[in-house]
Amino acid sequence: MKKKRLSVEEYVKGVLNGDRVTLSRAITLIESTLSNDKKMAEKVMESILPFSGKSIRIGVTGVPGVGKSTFIENFGKLLVDMGYKLAVLAIDPSSQKTHGSILGDKTRMESLASDKRAYIRPSPAGGALGGVSAKTREAMILCEAAGFNVVLIETVGVGQSEIAVKGMVDFFLLLMLAGAGDELQGIKKGIIEMCDALVINKADGENIDAAKRAKREYSNALHLFQAKENGWFPKVMVCSSLKKTGLEEIWKMIEEYWLKMSQNGFFENNRQEQRANWMHEHIRYLLESRFYQDELIKEKIQHMLPDIKSGQQSSIAKARELVDLFMKTQSE
Amino acid sequence: MKKKRLSVEEYVKGVLNGDRVTLSRAITLIESTLSNDKKMAEKVMESILPFSGKSIRIGVTGVPGVGKSTFIENFGKLLVDMGYKLAVLAIDPSSQKTHGSILGDKTRMESLASDKRAYIRPSPAGGALGGVSAKTREAMILCEAAGFNVVLIETVGVGQSEIAVKGMVDFFLLLMLAGAGDELQGIKKGIIEMCDALVINKADGENIDAAKRAKREYSNALHLFQAKENGWFPKVMVCSSLKKTGLEEIWKMIEEYWLKMSQNGFFENNRQEQRANWMHEHIRYLLESRFYQDELIKEKIQHMLPDIKSGQQSSIAKARELVDLFMKTQSE
Repeated sequence: MKKKRLSVEEYVKGVLNGDRVTLSRAITLIESTLSNDKKMAEKVMESILPFSGKSIRIGVTGVPGVGKSTFIENFGKLLVDMGYKLAVLAIDPSSQKTHGSILGDKTRMESLASDKRAYIRPSPAGGALGGVSAKTREAMILCEAAGFNVVLIETVGVGQSEIAVKGMVDFFLLLMLAGAGDELQGIKKGIIEMCDALVINKADGENIDAAKRAKREYSNALHLFQAKENGWFPKVMVCSSLKKTGLEEIWKMIEEYWLKMSQNGFFENNRQEQRANWMHEHIRYLLESRFYQDELIKEKIQHMLPDIKSGQQSSIAKARELVDLFMKTQSE
Repeated sequence: MKKKRLSVEEYVKGVLNGDRVTLSRAITLIESTLSNDKKMAEKVMESILPFSGKSIRIGVTGVPGVGKSTFIENFGKLLVDMGYKLAVLAIDPSSQKTHGSILGDKTRMESLASDKRAYIRPSPAGGALGGVSAKTREAMILCEAAGFNVVLIETVGVGQSEIAVKGMVDFFLLLMLAGAGDELQGIKKGIIEMCDALVINKADGENIDAAKRAKREYSNALHLFQAKENGWFPKVMVCSSLKKTGLEEIWKMIEEYWLKMSQNGFFENNRQEQRANWMHEHIRYLLESRFYQDELIKEKIQHMLPDIKSGQQSSIAKARELVDLFMKTQSE
């Protein structure tokens, strides 16, 4: 049976009432690439925006195998037990291939997924051109409007999405493993530099000593590399998601961050900058997506790319030619 | 006396003949923001492009005080003595304020500047929106067409220009100092990660031990952080630009890199990707610069920014409104 289409008002009302079904449908709406849906989504977002923002936004990243699901499951359980309403948004680049759903995401975080105080939603990576940034940020805002006051955004720590996520969260947490030879291998350059905390997971059983050694090693390395403008010195911690140790300390650290950054004004200032950047990012996204989706432009680029690469054609002359052509077609 | 304007043919011929005066005027032409000059510059670039590319392109960066001028002066002297023709392009963000010339640039590298086998040119940072990237890359190509077969591009190591420069060079060298407390302080996040070699300068006199210690420290840190796709493991070296020690070793290392990367195909492959990226960057630059230079858009943004920042207006809705408006004005 085909679901009845909702009106903008129904979306807004449902989300503001904290109705999970409507929230899910609203996120599906903003992820839609259909032109009509896009217009509707924009109206929903505009109505909902004034009711958003009242959460702490936490980015969680780490390579596959680091234990992100178990971490989020048990860290999340701790938060809901403390009375928080938790939304988890997971960005998986592979979901582009599987049409927007992370296979087994519900089973991945079974106990959290069945907990009414938490809401878990996979977010499609949405291709290039700022897709991750736009859709995930909007999903986060919808969750906030629905009353969730902690939002965890999970990424896999191997690509561009971390930079996008950094631009929309208040706190960025990197999960790592100890004892895998070169400790920081496998993590993309630059990701460590932008984290507010580095947490060594699986610090249990025979792993405890290695985790403590890794903690020292990372502390030294971070000490070399970091100098944050907000006065926060990135923390290195250990935890065992499985044994549920170290999780409370992590939350205490985030609370400390939250308090300090609220007091020194960085928290609100950061959010203001994020909102302005969001507009500029979206302008860039719209300009570029309209350009690259133009059929004539697509065809021209495909035709000229080999000569550009070999250096037989001038990259700048062709760029100008294409932009001139694009502007001209807009006026027809 | 006003200089006679050159024709496109005169520019091209002069540059290809290696005439330094014409080369300088051609670089001034491509740096011009006048609409007529831009068109002419594009024609010059197009004619000259097939004669470019036959150099090794080296980015040199480091914070102020690290001794870049002395390094380039004496490293450059070594290269010209070996028979290379050297062009040095210096990007100085401060030159925006001083109208495009680095004050004292000639005196900075006095002996190299008076050497006919070398050519030194300050490059204005050229504001935001990809200015550095576009102009410096074009200046580099003009130098190559004029017969220079080693191009050094100097940046100050504190900003965005390094990323732009990384996208146009074959080899990226970071100069550092030892013994200044936290060794990597002051260098922007991410810059260390993209270097192919890290050279500790001023390893002379009482500094030698500290430089060696720093070398070990950096080696360990880089070992933790780096995993290059081209199979190159970033080297850490020491030198004294003043005492002219270690400079030959640096050139040998660059030659080794050059050879390996030519053999494994990375060199040409990297350049092909750089040319394609150049086109995409320039497309972005043109789209955004036309957008943000639009008078109506400027006015609108200034008007709405406070409400965007405070979250009272939706960043995405306003972005779409602005882009729609821009596209509409193009058709008028």
